[in-house]
Amino acid sequence: MHWVDGVRAESLPLPDRGLNFGDGLFETLLFTQQGLVYQDLHLSRLQAGITALGMPDCLDYVRQQLALVSSHLCEEQYTHCAVRATVTRGGGPRGYAPVSGCSARIIISASVMDSHYPVEQAPAALGVAKTPWSYQPQLVGIKHLNRLDQVLAARERLDAGVDEMIMLDDRSSVVSTISGNLFLVEKGALVTPRLDRCGINGTRRRLILDRWCKKIGVEAREAQVSVEQLENASELFYCNALTGVRPVGRLGSKEWTQFPICKALHQAYCGENQ
Amino acid sequence: MHWVDGVRAESLPLPDRGLNFGDGLFETLLFTQQGLVYQDLHLSRLQAGITALGMPDCLDYVRQQLALVSSHLCEEQYTHCAVRATVTRGGGPRGYAPVSGCSARIIISASVMDSHYPVEQAPAALGVAKTPWSYQPQLVGIKHLNRLDQVLAARERLDAGVDEMIMLDDRSSVVSTISGNLFLVEKGALVTPRLDRCGINGTRRRLILDRWCKKIGVEAREAQVSVEQLENASELFYCNALTGVRPVGRLGSKEWTQFPICKALHQAYCGENQ
Repeated sequence: MHWVDGVRAESLPLPDRGLNFGDGLFETLLFTQQGLVYQDLHLSRLQAGITALGMPDCLDYVRQQLALVSSHLCEEQYTHCAVRATVTRGGGPRGYAPVSGCSARIIISASVMDSHYPVEQAPAALGVAKTPWSYQPQLVGIKHLNRLDQVLAARERLDAGVDEMIMLDDRSSVVSTISGNLFLVEKGALVTPRLDRCGINGTRRRLILDRWCKKIGVEAREAQVSVEQLENASELFYCNALTGVRPVGRLGSKEWTQFPICKALHQAYCGENQ
Repeated sequence: MHWVDGVRAESLPLPDRGLNFGDGLFETLLFTQQGLVYQDLHLSRLQAGITALGMPDCLDYVRQQLALVSSHLCEEQYTHCAVRATVTRGGGPRGYAPVSGCSARIIISASVMDSHYPVEQAPAALGVAKTPWSYQPQLVGIKHLNRLDQVLAARERLDAGVDEMIMLDDRSSVVSTISGNLFLVEKGALVTPRLDRCGINGTRRRLILDRWCKKIGVEAREAQVSVEQLENASELFYCNALTGVRPVGRLGSKEWTQFPICKALHQAYCGENQ
């Protein structure tokens, strides 16, 4: 199901700068019977992207469109959907330069999910991608539409036959998995890669750092992280809006079978969304 | 005017991985009364991109679609158009991983041009963009759809009120302008930035290096280039498929008024397309 600027649609008007240049942003939200989960955190990151790209102010418009889609999903009694909101700089003449006074275009897509966060996720097998994050200092943390790094890493994942891949930056520091933020447990404390060069500032990462770590009584910090540190961690997991937290059972030849902190975070997450 | 998979269209079917992730490539060709200019060079770069992204083999399909659009433009007696061919990995399920056996989707857009290569271009005023090229070793030279670097630099250009901007790589070496390849004249020889970390391998850059420099009896080489070298050059110009070669009249406080080599290349270019 797709909506373009609030109207059910099966296609996108041409031209669109989102298609032509990846000139836009997106958010993938979890929809449950409670509605869109942590929508404000998603909108806050979206606003950071709107500012970084100098896009027209459109947050109220996005909020309005999401409310419309959310009502529709409620009425139709959907219970678990992935809702992707894509915001592009719309149409305009040929060339890279945006036109002043252009309007944002909002494309919302909803798809039913098979496996979702209240279900405890099976431990994942991970590899390390050869494709690095590309470094663009102006776009650190932003969830924009230029995602070839992730597409290339996802192709490696398929070839490797694993569930997810670790992605590194241009200096071989750990950044994330392909579609989630990564945490390790080191001496009983949570550590997640600092996102100062690359990476997406994930909503669940934010919640773990700011809220859930306190709920479970574990310290959490951001730091530069090496692959060696991951291999020596007592526990490893990744998180995103759709899967919640997922433990890592294997990374290369290293294996883990116990995930007490990941499980506790999963409970903390579920406890907030009864 | 747009064509999607060979059919005149005003919209793109959703979902499309080109929109969702910038998962695709494009070429911008010049159409004249002689047809699509240097089409084979464009298709050769496109093929390099198809290989780099692991996209389905679709070059014959693109060639066929371009022939269709070119015939249409001839029949309708258009004389100078910009023809953009966008190739995406099509639709598919949610997530970064491409589906094996997916089909490419071809979107071709044609727009009438005001100013085009047979017209000698007025000297351009340039600035230096703060936005660098992002570094992705797997995509060097490729004309893919992840073009936020250029969009951000084009916003700087509008703010600076100049015609074009020099773009640097992450190590402050010169790569290109926003939408063209750059050449300088140093001790009577042509020098262009080596594209080993960033940049797009331009069709006119290729022609200058391989063919036109010989026609005008000037040596040409690729090298690492600094901004200081540009300022000390005896001549500076940039090139792309739509504008041909355009001399640089000003870069910051430095000015040039004579462009003998750029003019000679322009003549060499025109001589090939009578």
